[in-house]
Amino acid sequence: MNLILLFKDDFIDGGTRVRLSGRRHKHLRDICRASVGDEFCVGLCDGKIGTGRVTALEEDALEMDVALTTAAPATTPVTLVLALPRPIMLKRILLTVSSMGVKRIFLFHSHRVEKSFWKSPALKKANLKEQLILGLEQARDTVLPKVELRPLFKPFVEDELPGVAQKTLSLVAHPRSSGPCPRYVKRPVTLVVGPEGGFIPYEIEKLTGLGFAPVHLGERILRVEAAVSALLSRLF
Amino acid sequence: MNLILLFKDDFIDGGTRVRLSGRRHKHLRDICRASVGDEFCVGLCDGKIGTGRVTALEEDALEMDVALTTAAPATTPVTLVLALPRPIMLKRILLTVSSMGVKRIFLFHSHRVEKSFWKSPALKKANLKEQLILGLEQARDTVLPKVELRPLFKPFVEDELPGVAQKTLSLVAHPRSSGPCPRYVKRPVTLVVGPEGGFIPYEIEKLTGLGFAPVHLGERILRVEAAVSALLSRLF
Repeated sequence: MNLILLFKDDFIDGGTRVRLSGRRHKHLRDICRASVGDEFCVGLCDGKIGTGRVTALEEDALEMDVALTTAAPATTPVTLVLALPRPIMLKRILLTVSSMGVKRIFLFHSHRVEKSFWKSPALKKANLKEQLILGLEQARDTVLPKVELRPLFKPFVEDELPGVAQKTLSLVAHPRSSGPCPRYVKRPVTLVVGPEGGFIPYEIEKLTGLGFAPVHLGERILRVEAAVSALLSRLF
Repeated sequence: MNLILLFKDDFIDGGTRVRLSGRRHKHLRDICRASVGDEFCVGLCDGKIGTGRVTALEEDALEMDVALTTAAPATTPVTLVLALPRPIMLKRILLTVSSMGVKRIFLFHSHRVEKSFWKSPALKKANLKEQLILGLEQARDTVLPKVELRPLFKPFVEDELPGVAQKTLSLVAHPRSSGPCPRYVKRPVTLVVGPEGGFIPYEIEKLTGLGFAPVHLGERILRVEAAVSALLSRLF
């Protein structure tokens, strides 16, 4: 936790003092060994970053005076369109892409996504949010990404994706495709990433039909998690 | 498993028939639902890649006739020098970097590495090898990376690292350092990556004193796992 993410509800006065209990209190007390007077990096969700100085330390809560002065780091200009991964992978990927500055994520169905994944508790709003927050706290960011679930391939790809991809560089990661992933593109990207095992030909045809260029990262086939961070790092 | 990695011991004749039991048999039977006659991508450890055709399928083993025809993908020209991560992270990082073509890895001690990590069973030779093999099977590679353990910072950095880094681009990943990580360098690299929490000033001074240039990936602080794949993807 390189930043303590604060929410409006944490403030106990007009806007400078917060009271934290639960996970953040426990982290500051047990991992950071906070004492009264110590300062930590804090940020207001969807707002600015600054410093929190501990003013009171109790058994089950602590209070801080906060000064928020600096803007959050720049957003990575990408919409990530990801075939729903296995729940255990999903959690790590959400944390990772949140830490890498992705702010808009679609999780969509594809042929090789197991139907049972859509019933996972990992997709509950609170659980998605938890991973996104962990990513912001890791990266020292405050802007919460938005995750949208699209459990049907065809209506999503036909009716919604063209609008999402409009005026962006549209890429679909596809091992053994003809083009290498471009580097340092300096423009907004819509990046589609398939499931473990890849897209089926029908899906790739649909996507290329919409103007998505298939790109690869070399001869090697990476796990989705490594592929996503490698793609983002290469593109931006 | 995009490739079944074979070892010399698997061969039951001069060099074309293998007999597999255990994990690989189970994977081919349960996940791939292999039948006699089916073909799979196989590769000989440290050797060529080709096809294995199932010739016999038994309760606890299967046999394949293999033809090895193609060279393994090119090695990523990097020596990764990594402060020993938390054991659970180490396993995933080894799999990831093995899948990304890294062939030489040093795990070394640094101030913020918990001493207990050095006693983890994850560091046993067989356990390290297991993750490296999973990475090769993921990426369709055959060349097993070498992992070397260096539990003392100073003698490693002073006596051994200068030789390792000789004639390579020497970089140390360090958030908030002055230079951005270079892109697509087209030459061998020695890449030093610190622990969660980063190097202490003494360590960074030691490394820069040896000619390692501190580089960052932007304002954001990534987890070591995401940072390593992002760094490799940007450099090569």
